This record gives sequence, C-alpha cells and structure tokens, in this order.
Amino acid sequence: MISALIEGVLAGETRSIARAISCVEERRTGAYELLDALYPHTGEAHVIGVTGAPGTGKSTLINQLARAYRRRGTRVGIIAVDPSSAFSGGALLGDRIRMRDATVDSGVFVRSMATRGAQGGLAGATIDAICILDAAGYAKVFVETIGVGQDEIDVARATHTTLVVEAPGLGDDIQAIKAGLTEIGDIYVVNKADRDGADQAVRALQMMLEGGILGSEPAETTGNTWRVPVCETNALEGTGIAGLVREIEAHRAHLQQHGGLEEKERLRAKTGLEALLREELMSRFVARLGPEEWENVISRVATRHMGPHEAIAHLLAR
Amino acid sequence: MISALIEGVLAGETRSIARAISCVEERRTGAYELLDALYPHTGEAHVIGVTGAPGTGKSTLINQLARAYRRRGTRVGIIAVDPSSAFSGGALLGDRIRMRDATVDSGVFVRSMATRGAQGGLAGATIDAICILDAAGYAKVFVETIGVGQDEIDVARATHTTLVVEAPGLGDDIQAIKAGLTEIGDIYVVNKADRDGADQAVRALQMMLEGGILGSEPAETTGNTWRVPVCETNALEGTGIAGLVREIEAHRAHLQQHGGLEEKERLRAKTGLEALLREELMSRFVARLGPEEWENVISRVATRHMGPHEAIAHLLAR
Repeated sequence: MISALIEGVLAGETRSIARAISCVEERRTGAYELLDALYPHTGEAHVIGVTGAPGTGKSTLINQLARAYRRRGTRVGIIAVDPSSAFSGGALLGDRIRMRDATVDSGVFVRSMATRGAQGGLAGATIDAICILDAAGYAKVFVETIGVGQDEIDVARATHTTLVVEAPGLGDDIQAIKAGLTEIGDIYVVNKADRDGADQAVRALQMMLEGGILGSEPAETTGNTWRVPVCETNALEGTGIAGLVREIEAHRAHLQQHGGLEEKERLRAKTGLEALLREELMSRFVARLGPEEWENVISRVATRHMGPHEAIAHLLAR
Repeated sequence: MISALIEGVLAGETRSIARAISCVEERRTGAYELLDALYPHTGEAHVIGVTGAPGTGKSTLINQLARAYRRRGTRVGIIAVDPSSAFSGGALLGDRIRMRDATVDSGVFVRSMATRGAQGGLAGATIDAICILDAAGYAKVFVETIGVGQDEIDVARATHTTLVVEAPGLGDDIQAIKAGLTEIGDIYVVNKADRDGADQAVRALQMMLEGGILGSEPAETTGNTWRVPVCETNALEGTGIAGLVREIEAHRAHLQQHGGLEEKERLRAKTGLEALLREELMSRFVARLGPEEWENVISRVATRHMGPHEAIAHLLAR
C-alpha cells in the first residue's frame, strides 16, 4: 500500500499526494518508509516562504503568484501554516471562495497544515509536506506563515527564498515592521499599495535595509550578500506581480551562483534531523520510564514537593 | 554567590531579580540550583497572559492594568515575549517612553525576553522568569505574547488567566479574530474602543462565544465552565480598565472555587518538565555521539545519500 502511494506521489497524482501528506502528518504506519523513499527525488523544488501578519493579504498574493507561474507552465504547490490563511481550514467566512483561481487548476496543489496537535510538531509536518510536494514535481512550493515563534523559524530554515509581506495601515507601520522575524526577509513586499502610507512603508523599509537594521542572513561560506529588494504590489488588482516574480527568480539565481543552495540544504537537513531526534528520544524515554512513574513525578513537582531540575536529575539517574 | 542571589530574589530586590533572570536565561552555572531553591516559594502569583496581534495596544493595556493594581498596593511583574512589544528591546522608535509609568515604580518589574537564541528555548526561559517573579512576591505577573506558535502554546499553559486583545480596523475584523489561538481566551478585550467598528467587533466576538466557536478550554475535572466575557477598553485614555480588572479577579476566583488552579499547576509542571527533558536528552545524545559524527550524518542527509529517518534509526542503534 505504501509502495502504491510512493508511486502515485512520484507520478504527481493529486490524490496520492494528499493521502501521503495526511499519512505523514498523522505519523501513520509506513510514514517514515514513505518519506525516505521519496527523499532521493527531492532537492529540485524552489521553496518560497511567504510570511506576514494577518491582514497583509498573503493568501491573495500567493494566489496571484501561482497564476503567474501557471502561465509559464510551472506546477505550483501551496502549503498554508498560518491558521488565519484564506487557504486554511481556519477560514470562517467563505474566504476560500476567493482562492478558487488557484484551487481548481490541477497544476496547483493547495494544503493547509493543522496548527495544533500535529504529531511531531507543526514544523516537522510542514517540512515533510514540502518534501512530498518536491518529490511530486512541483517546481515552486509556497509556504504561507505568520512569521512568529520557534515553529516559524524552523519552517523558514526549510525554505530557499523568504518574502516578508507588509501592508500599510495595520496599526503603526513600524509596529507591523517590527512584528516577528522581519530580519530574515530575502524580499520585502508592501502589499495593498493603493492604500495611504504605502510609499511611506516602502521608504521606511528601504531605509532600514540600507541602515542594516533589516536584511537577510549573510551567506556563511561565501560572504556574498544579496541586495534585498522592496516590491510594491496590489494583489487584489494583480499589479506588481510580474516584478515580484522577477525578484523571486533573481534570488534563486543568486543562491545557485554563490553556493547558497547547498548551505540551505545543509541547514534544512540539520533542522529536520534535530526535530526528529528530539521527538524520538523523548518518546523512548517516557516509554521506558512508564506512564505511571512519569505522572507521579509531574504530581510531585506540581505540588512543590520537588523542584523541576531535581526531578529531571532523578529521572535521568535511573 | 548563588545563595546571595536566592536571598535577594526572596527579599524582592530588583537587581537580584534581574540578575537571576539573566542567569537562568543564559543557563549560567548555578541556574538550576537557583530555580530549585526558589521553587518551593512559588505558586502564589496570579499569572495573566495578554495575547494579541501587533498593533492591538497590548503594551498600553498592560501599563494601565499595572497602574490599577499598583493603586491597590499590589506588586506587578511584566514579562514581554512579543518582539514587537513596546516593553521589549525590539522597540525601534521611542515607544519605551510611553511605558515610563510602569517602569519608574519600584513595585513594578518589567522584563523583555529575547525571542531567539535563548538557551533551552523561549518558552522555557519565560516559564523560568515567571517562577522567579512569583518567588520574589509579585502578586500579579503579566506575560505579553503575540499568540501564535508552539512557544506561545507552551507559555499559555504556564498562565492562569489569558486575555485575548483585539482592535478594530486591523484589516478585516474577522481576520484579526481568526489569528492564532483565540480559542484559548478566558477574557476577550476589544481595545481602541473609540475606533469605528469596535461595537461590531464586540458583537462578533459575543456571537462566536455563544455559538461555541470561541471559548476557554473547559475545566477537565469539574466540567464547570467559565462564562467568557468580552470587555471594551481604550487603554490610551484609560477607559474600561476597572471593568477589566473586575473580570480578571472574577476569573481567578472562579479557578479557586472549581479546582482549576490545581489543574493549571499540573499542566504547568508537565510542560516545564517535558521542555527540560527534551533539551537534556538531546544535548546528552549529541555529546555522546561526538560533534564530528553528528556533522557527518547531517552532510549525508543534505546530499541525499541517506534519508532522514534512516539516519535517525542508524544513530539510535548505536
């Protein structure tokens, strides 16, 4: 059954891909076998993180980018990690309808990840889903995130190009810029460019980039730095999309020329291995200890009969 | 030296508290001893999480709540985990000045946590800081977070009362409501109540609460549910603060009456122990393996010579 699933994914069949992601997300039997079998077929996709606060229009922007790449015949995968995404199951008010463009096209695969309760953590499940879409031959994989927290940092490490999306008029502009991991952006996008304050937001970002307050992480091995651009778009109207696509492609070319891709692959492998190892060590340890003993220790700490580090020392000594 | 620090914290000395938090955050020698010595003196503080998107005015709201509690003679601790917080070091413009009220009063202790690179993770460092402020006799401890990601879930488990702060006019109201962990709120606050759309946001939240779309987690042991209120405030003007304080106190009384505090203590102990154990198991494993071997495995996975799960199985078999 797993071998049929592997074949289906490698043939790019939508149903197999969806089932493979569910299988991996829920850590069903055969999930590891599946991932390891697909793994040698990965490394071809260009993975693009799209991050920004709710209300910046990330989903609409991704929809437009997907359309632009589809016009070139490129197959596009979309993974929504942001619970407020219009792509995600968290959409309350029919926002999904807006996403029709992307989702009725068989060359586009859309998937939203559960934000809680994913076995092995959200970051791990997302990285596995990227791997499946990569193996299935999607040349561009967009990953939509909010950009805050450890999960997001881990997901960002699995992407090649990070777009940070801002929108004018979300409280203070500066407030929006400060939010989260703006310093990891490879490309900044000021969306909703028709709004008051858009030009001001672009100028503020440019000043911060020039002043070194923002900027992508320097390439460790080569020291060759990417000039971080600021793009203006109006995703609802579709303006500015062609320019943004050019910058995305320029960033990929830059990575290829300066060894950045190998570096990213290494970081991705390391992050993935660490997450797997942490999970595996923990579950083995609790299994060996026995659930009663584990509950007992928790109770003693909760009632202040034992300090937490004393408890850990006691557990590890056994 | 650690024993002097312990004494200083228990005596409520500001400098000792600041040094203790740094010691723990950077995992300096004696950090565990310090935490375990303080631990029996904890359990008295009422820990209040304040979560919401950037731009909702969380910092200003906490500042007003701190003033209200100070008028009652209560000592207040404030921990900012949100990198965009006006309390945090991430503040770029002179936002900190606005926070003067809270920070010049010796009965108020303010600390912002580094959002990256904290040894042992942000959630662990924050939970440890809560423990230190609790032992130092701060009766109310506010923890300001953005409300997205695993770190935030872990921090939320260490708080007794969670305020979810919304503000009208941050993109779609619904978009703001959907963002993140809104379903864990014990009290909802619509701040910036002078803005257009505030009453609408209040009504939308009330409807979602009545419809069961939002709501706090039901008390597992008693099944006695808390009626989640929606408060309107204008933190800049200071309106609505007295009503919000009443709801915060009502929630604490509810927890005390229905056994919710014991339940929260248990969850807090469990989360803390799990985080410590995961970290400890991982660092022991890599130390035993040797850094060269670990780097070697990462390289083999990055270059697709080995699947990640195969690599983990190989490592654990040794």
